[in-house]
Amino acid sequence: MSTDVPRLRVAVIGASGYTGGELLRLLLAHPRAEVTMVAARRAAGQTVAQVFPHLTGLCALPITAFDADAIAAGADVAFAALPHGESALVVAALHARGVTTLDLSADFRLHDAATWAAWYGGGDHPHHPAAALLADAVYGLPERHRARLRGATLVAVPGCYPTATTLAIAPLLAAGLVAPRGLVVDAKSGASGAGRTPGLGTHLPEVGEGLRPYKVGGSHRHTPEMEQELALAAGAPVSLLFTPHLVPMTRGILACVYADPTDPARAEADYRAALIAAYADEPFVDVLPAGQLPDTAHVRGSNRCHVQVVHDRRSGKVLAMSAIDNLVKGAAGQAVQCLNLARGWPETLGLGHAPLFP
Amino acid sequence: MSTDVPRLRVAVIGASGYTGGELLRLLLAHPRAEVTMVAARRAAGQTVAQVFPHLTGLCALPITAFDADAIAAGADVAFAALPHGESALVVAALHARGVTTLDLSADFRLHDAATWAAWYGGGDHPHHPAAALLADAVYGLPERHRARLRGATLVAVPGCYPTATTLAIAPLLAAGLVAPRGLVVDAKSGASGAGRTPGLGTHLPEVGEGLRPYKVGGSHRHTPEMEQELALAAGAPVSLLFTPHLVPMTRGILACVYADPTDPARAEADYRAALIAAYADEPFVDVLPAGQLPDTAHVRGSNRCHVQVVHDRRSGKVLAMSAIDNLVKGAAGQAVQCLNLARGWPETLGLGHAPLFP
Amino acid sequence: MSTDVPRLRVAVIGASGYTGGELLRLLLAHPRAEVTMVAARRAAGQTVAQVFPHLTGLCALPITAFDADAIAAGADVAFAALPHGESALVVAALHARGVTTLDLSADFRLHDAATWAAWYGGGDHPHHPAAALLADAVYGLPERHRARLRGATLVAVPGCYPTATTLAIAPLLAAGLVAPRGLVVDAKSGASGAGRTPGLGTHLPEVGEGLRPYKVGGSHRHTPEMEQELALAAGAPVSLLFTPHLVPMTRGILACVYADPTDPARAEADYRAALIAAYADEPFVDVLPAGQLPDTAHVRGSNRCHVQVVHDRRSGKVLAMSAIDNLVKGAAGQAVQCLNLARGWPETLGLGHAPLFP
Amino acid sequence: MSTDVPRLRVAVIGASGYTGGELLRLLLAHPRAEVTMVAARRAAGQTVAQVFPHLTGLCALPITAFDADAIAAGADVAFAALPHGESALVVAALHARGVTTLDLSADFRLHDAATWAAWYGGGDHPHHPAAALLADAVYGLPERHRARLRGATLVAVPGCYPTATTLAIAPLLAAGLVAPRGLVVDAKSGASGAGRTPGLGTHLPEVGEGLRPYKVGGSHRHTPEMEQELALAAGAPVSLLFTPHLVPMTRGILACVYADPTDPARAEADYRAALIAAYADEPFVDVLPAGQLPDTAHVRGSNRCHVQVVHDRRSGKVLAMSAIDNLVKGAAGQAVQCLNLARGWPETLGLGHAPLFP
Repeated sequence: MSTDVPRLRVAVIGASGYTGGELLRLLLAHPRAEVTMVAARRAAGQTVAQVFPHLTGLCALPITAFDADAIAAGADVAFAALPHGESALVVAALHARGVTTLDLSADFRLHDAATWAAWYGGGDHPHHPAAALLADAVYGLPERHRARLRGATLVAVPGCYPTATTLAIAPLLAAGLVAPRGLVVDAKSGASGAGRTPGLGTHLPEVGEGLRPYKVGGSHRHTPEMEQELALAAGAPVSLLFTPHLVPMTRGILACVYADPTDPARAEADYRAALIAAYADEPFVDVLPAGQLPDTAHVRGSNRCHVQVVHDRRSGKVLAMSAIDNLVKGAAGQAVQCLNLARGWPETLGLGHAPLFP
Repeated sequence: MSTDVPRLRVAVIGASGYTGGELLRLLLAHPRAEVTMVAARRAAGQTVAQVFPHLTGLCALPITAFDADAIAAGADVAFAALPHGESALVVAALHARGVTTLDLSADFRLHDAATWAAWYGGGDHPHHPAAALLADAVYGLPERHRARLRGATLVAVPGCYPTATTLAIAPLLAAGLVAPRGLVVDAKSGASGAGRTPGLGTHLPEVGEGLRPYKVGGSHRHTPEMEQELALAAGAPVSLLFTPHLVPMTRGILACVYADPTDPARAEADYRAALIAAYADEPFVDVLPAGQLPDTAHVRGSNRCHVQVVHDRRSGKVLAMSAIDNLVKGAAGQAVQCLNLARGWPETLGLGHAPLFP
Repeated sequence: MSTDVPRLRVAVIGASGYTGGELLRLLLAHPRAEVTMVAARRAAGQTVAQVFPHLTGLCALPITAFDADAIAAGADVAFAALPHGESALVVAALHARGVTTLDLSADFRLHDAATWAAWYGGGDHPHHPAAALLADAVYGLPERHRARLRGATLVAVPGCYPTATTLAIAPLLAAGLVAPRGLVVDAKSGASGAGRTPGLGTHLPEVGEGLRPYKVGGSHRHTPEMEQELALAAGAPVSLLFTPHLVPMTRGILACVYADPTDPARAEADYRAALIAAYADEPFVDVLPAGQLPDTAHVRGSNRCHVQVVHDRRSGKVLAMSAIDNLVKGAAGQAVQCLNLARGWPETLGLGHAPLFP
Repeated sequence: MSTDVPRLRVAVIGASGYTGGELLRLLLAHPRAEVTMVAARRAAGQTVAQVFPHLTGLCALPITAFDADAIAAGADVAFAALPHGESALVVAALHARGVTTLDLSADFRLHDAATWAAWYGGGDHPHHPAAALLADAVYGLPERHRARLRGATLVAVPGCYPTATTLAIAPLLAAGLVAPRGLVVDAKSGASGAGRTPGLGTHLPEVGEGLRPYKVGGSHRHTPEMEQELALAAGAPVSLLFTPHLVPMTRGILACVYADPTDPARAEADYRAALIAAYADEPFVDVLPAGQLPDTAHVRGSNRCHVQVVHDRRSGKVLAMSAIDNLVKGAAGQAVQCLNLARGWPETLGLGHAPLFP
């Protein structure tokens, strides 16, 4: 995979969690990037292979504590996979030093600092720690904001649920086929979405054979992000009820979005046509053939997204569905896709591999 | 567990599938019942323990082919766990011989033969094979039809999804709190719901780490059963969009029912109050404390049902949720509960055990 | 389940872990016992249903801090499911107050205090905290020590791995069919064996699709317990290499014990005959028919043990296998079985239920 | 990933099973290979994406029936992933037409036709269908036979269990550290090892929460293959008892090999030194640091193998362990590694990616 072109020097910050690990997995195989720095708070002093035994023999880098100057000296681009609030400070420090940053936290996804404060504020950060940068950040969903991502220096990589939800329903909203009010998003995620910190809620005996909703009733923080992006697509305010579930598997999100048609007389083919038109040139989104349904097992480990839509004549509802890998298209893979766009590289660079099935 | 009272002689027909196995598990421990006959078509000639190694040392009965006269001679009550169409013929033969029958197929759940034909008709049975008996059958959901189940001689044990869905939303419809139109039922099931016949759709490598919807767009046969029962509760026609999912676990159904309030000003407590009132005296249904959500892991192996409801002020929607074990409250346990009612026994007989957790 | 006989008042101490929860599940359904007190350190002040949502509606008892006098006043028998060291002190306090105690820790399993100190000593308890009681304790494996368990007032309930291993190989050692030296025990356990405290080693994403050995090279603390019990069976010192594994499932232990025959000329049937003779009258141990192999799925949730043995003519080795549910026959169920023996009740009381399959 | 070098044209035969799917996944990303033909018997007429929905958008090739002439015309190299017996005929036909073939069946792994007949003979093929080719075949385990693989035209890709077992123990046998007699191989595999044909033994509800051994007592067909390869390493006949298990996960094999030291006085470090020496220059085999144990989750999806060894002073035994992905290093990945060697390419071409974790 060597080329004569000098590689871009990349830092991964917050490298000890699953998103950090996934960034390492993808960047180690990226033909134009070279991971030169790996930072994490608690894991500082260890090697990457100690924190991630699956990278034994593949990455000999030491993990250091975060140091903005050191990163500015040793890397051209940084990926930050940190908790919200903390991430904004790190991003601001890097931005000030001219380091292009892809932020995988929620800190730059919402355009409005007050909305951030309402949903994320608290503890050390009642208000957004770097609100002045919000205007500079580009929401990193290439299928919706590709043009702005080209040359971007601060990318807010979307949340996993918003990615799946937006890819499923945004084209139908944009085409005016479904109403922007009263959307129901019933989404299901594998346990890696809960992060790498152990807890009773991800303890195998408790959850290995169980299924449960969590943060119901519109309390999940991805709600305003979805509403923001879908409102942009619809050109009108969007309200939705989002219900996430924890599924006894490791990776994958399946989103079911229920919507009311704006015209009850339309046929299912009309909705599919809108998806097909939206994704005809997209390298990572497949509208499945009619009759075939998304399955998280068919996108695992890849940056791909499978979408489908059906119309139920009896109830009059439309159901749009999507499946992604929450750690790839829902996090690290999308971040790499954004990097490719930001640098003007082919968008699929380092992301062309097939899902791991079975 | 012995008593001096002579035990009721019970036959299990269709004993080689999961519902049959679960009936055996429950009936072998029932203090007033004695399994005297076990019938199955393909497994005839084997012993129960050959078909179900977990019953080694617990049941030495041979499996025989179905013979209505033999069953009428050797059993007082029969449970039929057979495919639809075939089941109606077996039930009719037993009914004619005076054998009280609890039918776990779909054949006597729908009150209308034409609806049966529309959803289940085909192959050898384009029309209902025993439509004359439909009027005699009692829908075996004790929480909705307890009075009629007392003394019943033909019980149509409900489907697993309709049980979960009805227990979650019927009290809110009955109380006029939510609108009967536009319901969305997003339900998720473990793989045992697909039965014991192997197929690619339940092959561990294909589904062990995947999640997918199936029979979307209102095509699942449990749809008319739900609409029938919910219309009875609402006192008005009900239309709904039902989306089932296959979850990588063995047992359990979680149903999420999204509805529109009839009065947007009501508080969440109003919806909870309706559930609490409906289930105050129910031995198997628990309305969870506010803030606690249903989890299939907390009802597994038992006849219990956990329900909860939340109201989302932002979207205005109500979400009612329930968790059951699809093979127990969703099939065999509910059938035993109906037997207890039909015989005038305490309703919890043989069903008092706690869920198996973890 | 009511009877006219007054029930035995039972306390469960250390009730917030999986063994405690399983004791509650079994004792709540026991026809002669009544759980009157539930104690746990960290969970004190909560209700049982808060700690174990699966017991919602089934147990309204509060959880209290441990108080030996209160337990002596309110219970006739106590089950202790506590960490080693701490358990010995609790047991001693109860024993001094005349409370029959079934201890599920390792504190009274080893007959020799020096061995205890070598394997378990450390921290607050470098030496056995109640060594004087060791002579009073009966090792609670009914299949090996039934006579001594009758009337016992202090029972050391065996470890899960030693139960599975001993049931598989002890009859062959006792019959002199295999050599007591050079045994290899390769055993595999579900994650509930690791307890209820979350950690990276039981975090679903880390282990849901992985298999690994742990505490290899003879370092697992169940080693001396196995050697002690197998030496009693063999009438000679036993040395073995025990390798445990963590399997991505919740319940179950499968033990494979590899041994060298004392006479290479014997046939497989000779080994099976020894197992069959040993377990002919055992209510919970089944020697599977020739050709059928143990599967943890076939004993889950029950007190049953499936055993099998094969002889490989090519290598000359004998392989004895067993499957149990680690939380039932490997812990709580075996404790109840011991209680039944200690009180002179039928040994299967409260334990007659079938495994939960699938 | 484009290069100016013309790519090797590759055919995949038997493409509808898991090994075939994995070959496609790897070869689609291989920088020097281009999949030009895909053949399968039952799936002929469908597209690759119909048989493998995870390859939607990644492979538009049609699946054809096998035709040796067509393959000889359209491909330079063929991978055959077919049932034994059938595979030998296909390989012979391709070999006769000058097509370099990598055979993933068992047909060319055993050097001796009589041994093949004893273990694999039966049905349509009581004798080896192409015994004359056995001498031409090179056993495709690069770590043992690298030199012979360079330029090979017929490669017998090893079985999954023999790969894991040989990589764990061969260096210790080759160094004379452990005795070649009395080896015990206790190995555990994910369910993908059972292939893609559904059956009760891989039906999720039956196996999702169960663990069981199968083909015990030396009856598994990988036994002679292991003995052959280990005898080559030991320079002496080897006898072993091999016990495979089915673990409720999809991918991965963990092999535990128990052996007796030739000199009881040796230290654990001596055994580790032998592994380290053997694998110092191997691109895919990592000897884990002392104290760290193999976990199948840490190699999943990759061609990597993690090995470790411990010595137990108490029992005197040595335990060598290895973890691989059965579909990659145990099948498709190893085949690609062999192709790289056969063509004189860098051995890691197309195989450099990290495992998928979590």
